[in-house]
Amino acid sequence: MPKINSQRLMADLQELRSIGAVETGVVRQALSEKDMEARRWLKAKFEEIGLATTIDGVGNVLGRSTKNGPALLVGSHSDTQPRGGWLDGALGVIYGLEIARALAEDPETADLAVDVVSWQDEEGSFLSCLGSRSWCGTLDPEMEKAATNKEGVKLTDAIAAAGLTDVPRLRIEDGRYRGYLEAHIEQGANLEVAGEQIGVVTAIVGIRAMRFCFHGEQNHAGTTTMARRKDAATAMYELAHRINQDFPKVADEATVWTMGRVVVEPGAPSIVPGYAEIGLQYRDRNEAILDKFEEIASGIADEIAARGKIKVEYERTRAPIRPSEMDEGFQAHIAKAAADHAPDKWRHMPSAAGHDPMVISDKLPCAMLFIPSIDGVSHDFAENSHEEDIILGCQVLADATASILAEGRGS
Amino acid sequence: MPKINSQRLMADLQELRSIGAVETGVVRQALSEKDMEARRWLKAKFEEIGLATTIDGVGNVLGRSTKNGPALLVGSHSDTQPRGGWLDGALGVIYGLEIARALAEDPETADLAVDVVSWQDEEGSFLSCLGSRSWCGTLDPEMEKAATNKEGVKLTDAIAAAGLTDVPRLRIEDGRYRGYLEAHIEQGANLEVAGEQIGVVTAIVGIRAMRFCFHGEQNHAGTTTMARRKDAATAMYELAHRINQDFPKVADEATVWTMGRVVVEPGAPSIVPGYAEIGLQYRDRNEAILDKFEEIASGIADEIAARGKIKVEYERTRAPIRPSEMDEGFQAHIAKAAADHAPDKWRHMPSAAGHDPMVISDKLPCAMLFIPSIDGVSHDFAENSHEEDIILGCQVLADATASILAEGRGS
Repeated sequence: MPKINSQRLMADLQELRSIGAVETGVVRQALSEKDMEARRWLKAKFEEIGLATTIDGVGNVLGRSTKNGPALLVGSHSDTQPRGGWLDGALGVIYGLEIARALAEDPETADLAVDVVSWQDEEGSFLSCLGSRSWCGTLDPEMEKAATNKEGVKLTDAIAAAGLTDVPRLRIEDGRYRGYLEAHIEQGANLEVAGEQIGVVTAIVGIRAMRFCFHGEQNHAGTTTMARRKDAATAMYELAHRINQDFPKVADEATVWTMGRVVVEPGAPSIVPGYAEIGLQYRDRNEAILDKFEEIASGIADEIAARGKIKVEYERTRAPIRPSEMDEGFQAHIAKAAADHAPDKWRHMPSAAGHDPMVISDKLPCAMLFIPSIDGVSHDFAENSHEEDIILGCQVLADATASILAEGRGS
Repeated sequence: MPKINSQRLMADLQELRSIGAVETGVVRQALSEKDMEARRWLKAKFEEIGLATTIDGVGNVLGRSTKNGPALLVGSHSDTQPRGGWLDGALGVIYGLEIARALAEDPETADLAVDVVSWQDEEGSFLSCLGSRSWCGTLDPEMEKAATNKEGVKLTDAIAAAGLTDVPRLRIEDGRYRGYLEAHIEQGANLEVAGEQIGVVTAIVGIRAMRFCFHGEQNHAGTTTMARRKDAATAMYELAHRINQDFPKVADEATVWTMGRVVVEPGAPSIVPGYAEIGLQYRDRNEAILDKFEEIASGIADEIAARGKIKVEYERTRAPIRPSEMDEGFQAHIAKAAADHAPDKWRHMPSAAGHDPMVISDKLPCAMLFIPSIDGVSHDFAENSHEEDIILGCQVLADATASILAEGRGS
């Protein structure tokens, strides 16, 4: 099996970190100057090892191996959150680079084709998974036209500012790929808590979100009897608490739901609220559970509305993300490599956060590998992982890349 | 019985309304220029009918009858909410003026002593019931020093700006008063809904308020399992809904409670809330019910905290207002007058809103009379009452004033 160079891996990660570094974190949002600087740096690194590299019309950086396929595409994204960690995205891209290098250096694997990629705007500064959607041909032109960042800058203007307006966009190359592999920090604490080093991702969970709006009647909190009140907040509290009582009855161990955004108007201690609103987001790898949740939540809302005091409106507030199953064959390769390098310190687990394979798995077999996040922190300057885990993860993914491609050699 | 002059009553109400008029409402917050202009206008009106009138060091306007006591003090307040209605406060002050006038004009009641008052800052722009507290000698100097309005202006600076710093403050005159009478709009819709014209107030309800703060742990809404979460908002929803389930078991028909102010932080759909806060306010004329409510709410909070995930802090967020019983003898006089003028169209009822008699009833027997509010609206420019009800209320209170004082004549 090819051996990765851990010093080179860490040096490249640190050099990429320096582009847009702020305190211990990185600020390199999609299509910003720092993002494009990082992409040009990546292009040079990919070219150094002989990959034919393109920055395409949305900023995807794709280094194509000159070897014959079937190829594996390995990578992640190099754009960050507004106050991003240094490993989120960057880790998977530099793994791709190091794996391509390590396989090329080993005579036994030098014939295998590893392409490396950094997708654009996985974090959704403008449009989440912009780069992988564009590559897969599933980017909705209307969504692209409408996309803006938080400051109101249009995606099309940001593309123009980055000098990419007339640059062609890459599309998935028919017949070339066995599949796509991505490594990522866990962004949770499950591995750390269990004292484990590698997560083999089984599926990326589906995500749905709903908003419930309660229309009552604003009134004086002293002179309006309870019988005459139409208290919008009271209805909202009931929905929220009953969801928390009823969802566990149908949830799996890994199912999560959150009601993290609330509005109560006018929001004064002495006024019966005339309006309230609550957001509900829920995630699971099993669509049947997501369906059941939607049914329970809307059932409670309908029951409250049927009492005739409060008008309740609800709607889905984002395009639902369907659960994405990871390829079982690929999972077996990663699991074998994990068992070799970290016996009893790995597990199968779902990804509760979203990643580009949600988009790509409609077109190609995909797999993901997780390494532990210290204290489970992510989307924060404080995000970090132990160097030992970073190095181990790269070696495990390198083994899996080699064994998947070697398997294809016979065909 | 003395007959009030309804045209004069309505003209005075309209003239007072013109001072600080905005749209259909009035903006005349305590110690503002318009408030002081209204007080000088009231002083002139009181003097016109021979009352020895003083604007004291906090802005109370007190017109003292030259007749021997025992006297009745009749009035209310002329300061308003930031966007106040034209009758809230003003009605009771002008009733006092008209009643003093009407009794003086009637030979049979001309010997009776009616003093008229407009208290300062009942609405609490700086310090609720400032004027009546000062007059009763129960104004806490520390509270006065600390008091500011919403714009951060100190009460002491506002008093200076009104030129009152060195003006003496009136104190209750020992032995002079039989008691205090105040008329007010209902600020609710009970009378209107029942088709009634007069409310004889039995008690002003007590008010307590608490704030519950929930300290959990902010986390990623995807990667943090339900088992590991410390969701502050979930605890808050539980408290709120259980309060709404448990309070009705011990509440009376007139008990009210409100949770109108909520904070959930950081307030994002995709983040497990690390902090939540909710305000609870409750009112009843029975202290035992208020005690029981406090016990129930803090019991639920303690139970949630005892599970060890969420730290729950709670505290009273205002000095509790104890229920104030209105004088039963006075109530009988008002009830008799109501029965004479509006047979079957009056009722006994508690006041669910606060008024100066909460303060004064510790020193003097008090009574209040309500007239209907159109649609129950108050603390709003849209506040209004039917002219017929305004006139009837004044006549009823005039009768009661005369009969209470006449009763005292024998003594």
